[in-house]
Amino acid sequence: MKLITFTKDGFTRIGVVESGYIIDLHCAFVEKLRAEGKLRAQQIADAYVPNDIVGFLQGGEESMNYAKQAVEFALSHDSDVPLVFKREEVKLNAPVPTPGKMICVGHNYREHILEMGREIPSYPVVFAKFANTVIGPEDDIPFYPISEQLDYEAEFAFVIGKRARNVSQAEALDYVAGYTIVNDVTYRDLQRRTLQWLQGKTVDGSAPMGPWLVTSDELTDPSGLGIALFVNGEERQRSNTANLVFTVPYLVEFLSGLMTLEPGDVILTGTPGGVGVARNPQVFLKDGDVVRIEVDKIGALENRVKKVEMPS
Amino acid sequence: MKLITFTKDGFTRIGVVESGYIIDLHCAFVEKLRAEGKLRAQQIADAYVPNDIVGFLQGGEESMNYAKQAVEFALSHDSDVPLVFKREEVKLNAPVPTPGKMICVGHNYREHILEMGREIPSYPVVFAKFANTVIGPEDDIPFYPISEQLDYEAEFAFVIGKRARNVSQAEALDYVAGYTIVNDVTYRDLQRRTLQWLQGKTVDGSAPMGPWLVTSDELTDPSGLGIALFVNGEERQRSNTANLVFTVPYLVEFLSGLMTLEPGDVILTGTPGGVGVARNPQVFLKDGDVVRIEVDKIGALENRVKKVEMPS
Repeated sequence: MKLITFTKDGFTRIGVVESGYIIDLHCAFVEKLRAEGKLRAQQIADAYVPNDIVGFLQGGEESMNYAKQAVEFALSHDSDVPLVFKREEVKLNAPVPTPGKMICVGHNYREHILEMGREIPSYPVVFAKFANTVIGPEDDIPFYPISEQLDYEAEFAFVIGKRARNVSQAEALDYVAGYTIVNDVTYRDLQRRTLQWLQGKTVDGSAPMGPWLVTSDELTDPSGLGIALFVNGEERQRSNTANLVFTVPYLVEFLSGLMTLEPGDVILTGTPGGVGVARNPQVFLKDGDVVRIEVDKIGALENRVKKVEMPS
Repeated sequence: MKLITFTKDGFTRIGVVESGYIIDLHCAFVEKLRAEGKLRAQQIADAYVPNDIVGFLQGGEESMNYAKQAVEFALSHDSDVPLVFKREEVKLNAPVPTPGKMICVGHNYREHILEMGREIPSYPVVFAKFANTVIGPEDDIPFYPISEQLDYEAEFAFVIGKRARNVSQAEALDYVAGYTIVNDVTYRDLQRRTLQWLQGKTVDGSAPMGPWLVTSDELTDPSGLGIALFVNGEERQRSNTANLVFTVPYLVEFLSGLMTLEPGDVILTGTPGGVGVARNPQVFLKDGDVVRIEVDKIGALENRVKKVEMPS
């Protein structure tokens, strides 16, 4: 499934993209249960297929199966309640709008490590973004007047689907709910003005995510996926997840050996070579630039950069 | 007020410590509203004085005032519902068990900067912990067999009480709900094995917090507070928040200039000199060690280190 979070008529909920249509998962499951004569339809749906993606992922395989039944029901039954929408009728948000953790891996594509003049690391370099950074596939990337060096980083990301602690590489993919695209937008000078990168990484709106979460029963192998980034149509980054130094299973084992990973946690696997700061001459993002990231078997995430005033 | 999160009979809720007793804020507010004849007492209390601290802090000054009324009611009225407990009848948890953000400041006490052989920074060095690290004042610090270098860091912490974006130093303290103590427990070798510190900082259970949140109407001036840390009674760190390079108001301005701070976000202001790794000879924590942090006008946070097996 392609899981989404979408807004329609001011109300935000989760859905699935199927044959170009959007299915409202929660409402479809409620209607399915009602059609079966269940008096507690609403409460059961609240428990198993709630409106928010983190709650839904917490339900694990059980909820995932109910979601599939809900989609089938919506596409094969008429209903007084609108359950199916055209793509253009809704606004897509980030599939995981408020992850509990966003863990980023630095220096993870061989060629990016080389362009930054670094050695292949023995351990993953991990750092954080917070959930304030997350915006959706239809949002603009806000460019705050706190820096002149706004840069892009195309990233293949995975989302945890099951609480994970001390999980082995062999079992790691069972703990992955699915995959999406994130642009790890970076204020490069702020990132580098101290030893720790956080301040250049967690500015509001600096993690466009989407357009959907492709579930791991559909995208079964996260290796060998092409990834590319374009600015105003010009290719700037291109690589393949086969070039990851630390793979998805490795990262699940490594990170879950340190901390408990929870459903909805988002892990960004790192960016390929070709970021603006490493080009000769350097080139940074400016107002109006359109940044597009494509990843095989997922799709494309495209956002426009928009200069904004400082909020007050 | 001294705000707490506590567990009694398996049920976790927020409370206030007053004259050595614990008052259940939510239940006390429900009972107060009932005594006033309000038919929607439960719903009003759920809205304004919910059981969780982040929800409560989101209610701002309004909720804070209701909490004071609830305390007064509980201490002056008999009630069929138990509203007041003795200290030993409850378990204290971290006052903010699941902060949305935990932002840590490194190198912020002048003498600690010098002992680590660094220069006074022009900008705060900021890094992250995630909420999986938070444990309470009655919990043991788990020492996982992933390192031999478990270290302590006494920290004075503040908690955001009002959504903050681009707030000036002059107004900064209006955005602070209160103050608490955090031990920024660090796996020192993991912290240092890559450029970024996150992996040594966000191991499960590595942020004992508490014992309570002293609200900023009671603790009005966060400067000039003595801070000290003891291991098994032996003093290891001692300083004063007057020695902070970047003060609480400065940090609110700095951080809110980058990102939206939300109620319940916890900011750790840094640690004084005397951490184990910087001693000569170096000395790290071991199984059974008792780490106690004292901060003026707050109190003491004391936790025992406990070697544990890796979870499976």
